[in-house]
Amino acid sequence: MRVIDENTITDAAIEQMASTPNPRLRQIMEAAVRHLHAFAREVDLTPDEWIEGIKFLTATGQMCSAYRQEFILLSDTMGLSSLINSLHDRRATEAGTKSSLLGPFYRQDSPTFELGESIATKAHGGPEIGIYGRVTDGAGKGVPHASIEIWQPDEDGDYDLQKHDPKEMDLRGRFFTDAEGRFYLRTIRPLGYMIPMDGPVGDMIRAQKRHGYRPAHIHFLIGAPGYREVVTALYIAGDEHIESDTVFGVTESLVAHVQDRDEASPFNGMPVIRYDFQLGAVQGAGSGRVGADPSQILKKTEAAAD
Amino acid sequence: MRVIDENTITDAAIEQMASTPNPRLRQIMEAAVRHLHAFAREVDLTPDEWIEGIKFLTATGQMCSAYRQEFILLSDTMGLSSLINSLHDRRATEAGTKSSLLGPFYRQDSPTFELGESIATKAHGGPEIGIYGRVTDGAGKGVPHASIEIWQPDEDGDYDLQKHDPKEMDLRGRFFTDAEGRFYLRTIRPLGYMIPMDGPVGDMIRAQKRHGYRPAHIHFLIGAPGYREVVTALYIAGDEHIESDTVFGVTESLVAHVQDRDEASPFNGMPVIRYDFQLGAVQGAGSGRVGADPSQILKKTEAAAD
Repeated sequence: MRVIDENTITDAAIEQMASTPNPRLRQIMEAAVRHLHAFAREVDLTPDEWIEGIKFLTATGQMCSAYRQEFILLSDTMGLSSLINSLHDRRATEAGTKSSLLGPFYRQDSPTFELGESIATKAHGGPEIGIYGRVTDGAGKGVPHASIEIWQPDEDGDYDLQKHDPKEMDLRGRFFTDAEGRFYLRTIRPLGYMIPMDGPVGDMIRAQKRHGYRPAHIHFLIGAPGYREVVTALYIAGDEHIESDTVFGVTESLVAHVQDRDEASPFNGMPVIRYDFQLGAVQGAGSGRVGADPSQILKKTEAAAD
Repeated sequence: MRVIDENTITDAAIEQMASTPNPRLRQIMEAAVRHLHAFAREVDLTPDEWIEGIKFLTATGQMCSAYRQEFILLSDTMGLSSLINSLHDRRATEAGTKSSLLGPFYRQDSPTFELGESIATKAHGGPEIGIYGRVTDGAGKGVPHASIEIWQPDEDGDYDLQKHDPKEMDLRGRFFTDAEGRFYLRTIRPLGYMIPMDGPVGDMIRAQKRHGYRPAHIHFLIGAPGYREVVTALYIAGDEHIESDTVFGVTESLVAHVQDRDEASPFNGMPVIRYDFQLGAVQGAGSGRVGADPSQILKKTEAAAD
């Protein structure tokens, strides 16, 4: 008869899961059990602390809706989402622009614009800026007709989906590079914002005395046939939270400077960001999108519960 | 400017959490981040797998209700609850009977019985058994007037709370030891049962080709002023799942034999279990209850969400 104690329980659990037919699921669950148990042993977790953890995870799950993904927010604020991005980049056979969080505000059906047009379709108080550059392959050669999807918050730090009528799109759109891989577009300068603080993750952030802000940024999803899709964001240099992003999306190579003077800019007299994106060669299946439309996750959840 | 990659992200997250005023919360969250990241790095978790994990945790949270605690079930089936019990036992200054899972079926307000009475207040088809023994201190001296709360499923593997009218109590009750620490009571022989399989944890158990059963068992919560409360269970020897409990509650010292003949038994001609429980000296605050009434967890959740 087996003796179960704080040392033998881990092997006992792994042994019982060894019947898992899918080898990848077996590997993931074995590692999950080992690391979860190692965590509990290291901090010598008490029953009272364990039940606090159960309450926190339950509240996180109950906060999720078609408009809110509190578990992704938890993953983001613990640095897990950023790590998943980095692991995804490391698996590339050919390096491209670094990945950053997709976030919860991406929509697939944003309108297509002509090069040079502005994605600011509503009236805004913030200053207009231009963004231009090239999409290149690993050798620096321009990728023609690459798709560039862009979305961002406004001068108050709000996305269109957070406005009165979430069906009206603004500050999001799709462009295609020209025959030399060049792109140029106009928008407004975004403001940083605080993550949603009215749920369990907000309680955690407050208990940790973290500020809860993300620095100002602009999202990009870039793809072309034959290349690896890049999900990333540019972070505006000079933002006061550029070194302390609550969700760890900022890295040096993604910090963009808004230049008041740029001789090469196609936008005369307008502050501009110049940034060249690089696409690696396509490889295997699988998405690099670390984030999701909350309603899609909940749909799957409800289907699974049926 | 900081470079965030798969190696630096862990320190970056821990550094941002270093402002946490409560040292124990800081320690727990730092360890949680380190072990969570080590898990993701070890299995080289992809964005598609990460989103599957987000969906699973979301579904687990949404399955929780006043009558169901799917996160405790997940903790149970991953061996975490059993580990928390063992860590709790190890912290005792004086050894007592080993802890086992409280589970979701404990109720505080069960009726008090006289020694020798049966907790089977409804008609049952299963065979009657006796249980007797002593509650002792660390030196083997009987503990007088110790409280013994007992609860168990019936001959079909169902608890009273799973029956037609969950308000009618059956197969649960409270006894007090006599002046020498002795107890003796009657009940019916319980049957093992399958954990709830209609939620995400059930999906996991099926994907792992585990049987999902718990061996037949009887729960005990034993306490007396000046002693450390023991939450435990006795597992009936001979049950076909005694070596493969889905929630890892069984350990050698908690396996009880139903004896057809026992000269010392106070119950003439009735099959009996003899078991002596041991209480360690009281020490510090904090509960040893690894489990909870699901409605109490949800109440806290709703309060927290206000």
